[in-house]
Formats: sequence, structure tokens, C-alpha cells
Amino acid sequence: MSKAAQGKANHEWEGLLQNRRWYAMRRKVASMHPADVAEQMAYFGPQEEGLFLRLAGPRKGEVFAYLKPKQQQRILRNAVPEQLDALMSQMPPDDRTRLLGKLPKAVAHALLGRLPASEMKHGLALLSYPENSAGRYMTPNFAAISPHLTAAEALAEIRRTGRGKETLNVIYLVDEEGRLVEDLKLGSLVLAAPETKVTDIPDPGMVGLLDTTPVEEVMRAFEKYDRVALPVMDASRRMLGILTIDDIVDVAEAKNTSDIQRMGAVEALDLPYADYGFWAMVRKRGGWLAVLFLGEMLTATAMGHYEKEIAHAVVLALFVPLIISTGGNSGSQATSLIIRALALQELKLHDWFRVLRREVASGLALGGALGAIGFTRIILWQRMGLGNYGEHYFLVALTVWVSLAGVVTFGTLSGSMLPFVLRRFGFDPATSSAPFVATLVDVTGLIIYFQVASVILRGALL
Amino acid sequence: MSKAAQGKANHEWEGLLQNRRWYAMRRKVASMHPADVAEQMAYFGPQEEGLFLRLAGPRKGEVFAYLKPKQQQRILRNAVPEQLDALMSQMPPDDRTRLLGKLPKAVAHALLGRLPASEMKHGLALLSYPENSAGRYMTPNFAAISPHLTAAEALAEIRRTGRGKETLNVIYLVDEEGRLVEDLKLGSLVLAAPETKVTDIPDPGMVGLLDTTPVEEVMRAFEKYDRVALPVMDASRRMLGILTIDDIVDVAEAKNTSDIQRMGAVEALDLPYADYGFWAMVRKRGGWLAVLFLGEMLTATAMGHYEKEIAHAVVLALFVPLIISTGGNSGSQATSLIIRALALQELKLHDWFRVLRREVASGLALGGALGAIGFTRIILWQRMGLGNYGEHYFLVALTVWVSLAGVVTFGTLSGSMLPFVLRRFGFDPATSSAPFVATLVDVTGLIIYFQVASVILRGALL
Repeated sequence: MSKAAQGKANHEWEGLLQNRRWYAMRRKVASMHPADVAEQMAYFGPQEEGLFLRLAGPRKGEVFAYLKPKQQQRILRNAVPEQLDALMSQMPPDDRTRLLGKLPKAVAHALLGRLPASEMKHGLALLSYPENSAGRYMTPNFAAISPHLTAAEALAEIRRTGRGKETLNVIYLVDEEGRLVEDLKLGSLVLAAPETKVTDIPDPGMVGLLDTTPVEEVMRAFEKYDRVALPVMDASRRMLGILTIDDIVDVAEAKNTSDIQRMGAVEALDLPYADYGFWAMVRKRGGWLAVLFLGEMLTATAMGHYEKEIAHAVVLALFVPLIISTGGNSGSQATSLIIRALALQELKLHDWFRVLRREVASGLALGGALGAIGFTRIILWQRMGLGNYGEHYFLVALTVWVSLAGVVTFGTLSGSMLPFVLRRFGFDPATSSAPFVATLVDVTGLIIYFQVASVILRGALL
Repeated sequence: MSKAAQGKANHEWEGLLQNRRWYAMRRKVASMHPADVAEQMAYFGPQEEGLFLRLAGPRKGEVFAYLKPKQQQRILRNAVPEQLDALMSQMPPDDRTRLLGKLPKAVAHALLGRLPASEMKHGLALLSYPENSAGRYMTPNFAAISPHLTAAEALAEIRRTGRGKETLNVIYLVDEEGRLVEDLKLGSLVLAAPETKVTDIPDPGMVGLLDTTPVEEVMRAFEKYDRVALPVMDASRRMLGILTIDDIVDVAEAKNTSDIQRMGAVEALDLPYADYGFWAMVRKRGGWLAVLFLGEMLTATAMGHYEKEIAHAVVLALFVPLIISTGGNSGSQATSLIIRALALQELKLHDWFRVLRREVASGLALGGALGAIGFTRIILWQRMGLGNYGEHYFLVALTVWVSLAGVVTFGTLSGSMLPFVLRRFGFDPATSSAPFVATLVDVTGLIIYFQVASVILRGALL
């Protein structure tokens, strides 16, 4: 909804609420998408939550599923037992797992205990999957039919049993042992001649996932095969549930957010920015900053080793920020490129040597070019009287050039190899490596710079 | 497909190709998902491309649509006219727009000219939308029925006209003037009693998009409403086409990639890492590095202003890298958090002042804490004989503490406000602002540090 439309809607609702026009409100809620009802509830805040849920009637659980986690938890805390039961049993099973997974274990189990026995069993099974697996996000609420039916029989069967399924877009042919035989788009089924056997209806080859498949691979599968739902099976092909693309889009968006946050050296946030308390936010950010700060302290140690050189040639100190930042920039460039290429599987682990050769060459080219700019700047400033770098300014400029080539090469090299090393040892080459690379390159960059200086300036300044 | 499975598949195909078992190959291709056929084609490279496309027969266009842009363009260059016609007309219209959009304008129009007149008109219309709008990504190939039918009549109509539509998951009720009345899930239609009027079938409220809606808003709409397809209309509600979620997932993934790349100070890449030539990649990276390098040169100018202070108190130079990097880290933290929160619409433009107050307070808290660590480190090292910061080491430590508080506060402040400023003036507060913030904070950090030093150390060291 656009901002103007939202403003108008808020205004309308305020009027209805003030005049207590229950019937009009109920009719209005019935015509709205549950996501919009949830948004409207969020606007009016805690006082009107109960009212909106009552107005939603049988769609209460759906609306509840669209609320933000914080609001859901508050409602659960304040609900009387009957309300709790209604919300829990009306919520789609996959959304329920997501919510319960965020609650303390004891609370989650207590809530599950309020469900009918069979749903409770399902709920416990879903919760027992690791957070990052396909099993955790699936819903057992799919439309299955026997593979022995004709198209007409299948449609009749779907009419009989299909109500309340998570989706009817894809129908699953499941044999007597519960094994998945084939999936079939409802559209293909509708188009098929009534007497066709369902197994003979042409459909692109089936794609199934194991319950243990990691979420990243699930995302790749959705992208690759352009499906709206994918079946989840156990190791013996028994069908357990389905994953729908809307859940995966939410998961992908959350992953995107945490990638960008980790790249910016923040622990990934679980809540929106505005929902964090001040101190909670400071803690989330302080941890990382402190770790990087401790790493950066090594720069003071490194500089300490060259204190005598700096005292002899103060001019050297002037270029320290330029050199280490440029090294850091080239390092985070390389890391972000490689991490992303690994995540999208454009690069595999065994490509490391090809990448290494290429990045060293890129580093030399980039560092050489930047160094030339730096060199020219120093010579020009000196000649034009804009700066005074002493009688040996030419050697100083040369030091900067050679150092930049070295530092940028080291930056691209370590930036591109760290993700491979992390992946090789089974870690997630997460975007959080970018700030680490910058710190590593800062320290090493100083050493490179002063070593180059001690060679080039020996006998002149040093 | 897992790596092992892929290896096995490659091996099998090699056998079939060597023994020229055309019939077995054709049958195998028919059983495969087009995405997998495309992947197999990519494995065998240019020599076998023609063969695979012939084997795909009538699914040629579908397989072609799944190839990578580079491969598509090579095939188009080498195709004879009849092949071109077949590929162009069999490709789904939205994928076709995507491909043509990447080609030079003259080539795109020449290719469109080979299509039947009506499709050519559609193709030109799609291409004329701006790259970032819903219109650019829609397909005009949707299933529409009259709103006056009953459920049974609607199903019969879909059977008659539904073949070859982009999706049948959602059916659109369109009136005589071409205006969108309602959308309806095929599943709901199948479940409805045969004599129900289609407009009476319950379905969550309709969500429509304008053709001019920006892609980011389209993504939000898909996330919010959990739909697999959304209708696109012009300003007078005439229905133009649909957007399917699989296309939007691809677009979102591409956006995610370019966000992360821009955050790492790289111009967003159009191709996978491995597809770039060496010099093309160096150019892509060099541009940004050079811009940031020119900005960083200001650090040398700033340091030049304090050359005398450094000469008097070399100890000051030792902490320069620590201070500016910490400022940079806090700045990129703040930018990445705010950019993401703005993109997800968790924050709106008018929240800027609330954010400002909060970030200044966070900056003081974080900078104060980090400064305390730095202070302690200097005092401890001095006492333990690990470093020698001179007789005024206490004042030096105090300078570091106060400077860090100032630099980190300035970092969070400028990092959090820059995205608001960019958004305010109509720019995309892209993740590329992160490296800029770091550069800005480097220069300002130096000034803050030396100013603090000149106050605290006056009369002692300076």
C-alpha cells in the first residue's frame, strides 16, 4: 500500500473505531488481505489487538501469522487459554514452527501441548530439525493423491480433501508406502483430458529435497527450477512435507539482511532496527567493534617498531593512513567478490589456485596504477609548492608507489584467499570476513610500507 | 543436483555422445527439467550446444531461457535465421525481454522484427519500460476469464485457452474493457461448487501493481502478501500482464549480489566472477579504488598540517591507524544498518531525527568504551615495559581515549545520516555509501585526533 493510501486507511479505521461500527469493521476486515489486517493492527498497537483478532474471526490464525514476532509474543503472553488454542491451531504449521522456534523451549512445548495430538506430534517433529535445514521450514499440510488415479478422479479427490492445504498449486502423487512418485501442477491436471492417468500427464522432471538439505541449497533449487513449491522427503523417499517459495523468499531476505549487516561489522540483528532497545543495540555492535579494535591494536605495536624511522623521517607518517586504507579497500573488494561467487556456486573450492593467480595479477595491476597516481601527486605537490616532502621527495614518492603495489597485492591476495580457507575448514565464509581482512591488511600494510621505506630511503633519510 | 550426482550425469552423457545414441539422448532430455538440460549444455560447451537444442525439440525455447546470458548471446550470434525464429518465438516473453534488454538496441529490434506481428508489438512495449519497473519484468501471457462465468464454465474456459500460459496458479477475472476485477487461485476455483459464480468464490483481497511500480516495491509486495503471481495494471486498471515470483526471486538475488559488491567498494558486476576477462575485471575494480584513493589523499594533506606536532611527539603517530580504522568500522556499521532498515522500510525518511539522537548516544557509549580499552592498554604496556610512550604517557593515553569517543561518535553520526541525506535528495542510499563513509571518517578522524592532542598535550609534549 502506498503511504497516501495507508494514511487514508488509518483515518478511515479511526473513524470506525470511534463510532464503534462493529458490523462495518467486520465487513471491512473480511475484504482485506490478512497481511493488510496485520499491518493495520500494528498501527493501532496493543489496545486494539484483541478487537482486530475477534473481527478476523476464522481467519484469526492467518492474520496472527503475519504479525511481527515481537507482537506475536506479546499477544501470546496476554491471551486467555481459549484464545491461545484458537491461535495455535489456526496458524499455518510452518509459520507456527518459525514462531515456536523463537520462544524458550519450555514455552514452545507447553504451547504445542495445547494442540490436538496429531498436530502436536507434527509440531514436535518440525521443531526437532536444525534451524538451517529444509525440515525446519516445511509444512506437512500438502495435497497428496494416489498415483493410480485418472485426471478426473484426481480432481474429484482434490475437491474432497484439498480444503485448508498450504497450497494446491502443486499436487503430489504419493504411493501406498508414502513414497513420493511425482509432482504435478494443478494447472497441468486441469488441462489434461479427464481419462488420462495422472502419471501420464506431462510435467517437467521432478525435483525433491531431503529434509536435511541446508537452506542455502533450497534457495538455489527454487531459483534454478522456478518452482513455487518443492517436496521434502526423508532418505527413503517418504514424503514429509513441502516448502513454499514465499517462506523461502522471507528466509532469503533475512539472509540478505544478515549478510549486509555482517559485512558492515555488526552481529546480524534478529529484530528490525527500530525494535531494539538502546543498550541491546549497543551490545550487538560493541562486541564486533571491540574484537576489531583489539586486532587494530597490533597497528600500534607495529608502528612502535618503526618509531625511530618515523622520528628521522616524519614525512613517512604522512602517508600511513593513505596506504593502509587503500590496502583495506582492495582487500574488502576481493573478499566481497569471492564470498558472493562462492555462495552462488559460480566458484568452487578447487578453483582457489586459479583465483589466486588472477588476484595476485589484479593486485599488482591495481596497486601499480594507484601507486602511480600517488607518486604523481607527491611530485606535483612538491614542484607546485603545495607540500614539502624534503630534499629526498623523489625517493619518498617512490616508496609510496612501491608500497602501494605491495599493499594492494597483499590486500587482494588475503581478501580472496580467506573465504577459501574458511570454506575449506568447514566454516561459513561469511561476509563478516570483510572487516577482518581490513584489520589484517592494516597491520601487514604498515610492515610492508616501513620495510620498503627502509630499503629505498637507506642512506638518504634513514 | 549434488556434485556427485552431477559427476555421474556428466559421465553418462559422455558415453551417450561418444556412441552417438541419439534416441536414448532424446528420451533422456525429455525426462529432464529444462534447467538441468541447460546446465548439462553448459558443461559440454559450444560444440554440443546445437545438438542439445535439437534434442530438446519443442522445449528448445524453454531450455534456451535457462542458459546464462553469455551463452545465449553466443548461440544467437551463430544461429541461422530459422533457428533464431524458433528460439525467439518459443522463449517465454518475460525471459525474452530480459535477454533483449542486455543486447545492443539495434540487435534487439532486429530480433523482435522476426516475431509474429502481435508478439513483436508486445515485445517492443515491454522493452520500452524503464529497467527498474514492474512493466519490464511482466509477461503478457496470463490466463484471463470473464467475471460473469460460473466455476464450471471457468474451468471449461481454462481448459480451452490455458495451454502455454506462464502460470495457471492464479486466474484473472477481466471485464469487457480489459479491466482487472479480481484474481482467483486455481485451487479455490477447483474447490468451488460448479454452479458458484466466480466472483463469489472467497479469495483473499486482491493486490494489484502498477506497471510503473519500482522493482523494490514489487519485492516487498511479494513478501508481504505471500503470492506466487501479481497482476500488473496501467493507471486506468487495464490489465497488462503478470509478474511471477520466480522472476522476482532472480531479480532479488541479483540485487543482493550487487548490494554486497557495492558494499565491498566494487562496481556491481553484470556477469559471474569467472566470466570476466582480466582487464575488464581490473577496470571494474580500479574505478572505485581510484575514487576512494583520491579521497584518501586528503589524509596526507591533513597529516601534513600536523607535521610539526608529529615531529615533536612521534608517539602520536603510533595511534593514527588504530583511531582512523575504529572510526571507519563504526561508520560502516551504522551505514549498513540504516541502509538496510530504509530498504526494508523499517525506517522512514521522517525518522531521521530519532535515529540521529540515538546514534549520537550509541557513538558516545561505544567510543567511550573502546577508548577505555585503549587507555588501559597504553597504561598497562607502559607499566609492564612492553612499550615506551614517554614521560607523559598518561596524557597520551587520555588523548587516545577522548579521541576515540569523538571519532566513533562522528563515525556513527555520519554513517547513519548519509543514507537519509542521499534518500532525501532522491538518490538510492546504496550500500556503496559504506566505503565513502569510511573515507570521510578517516580524514575527519585525523583532525579530531590531532585537535584533541593539541588541547590535552599543550605544554607537555606540544
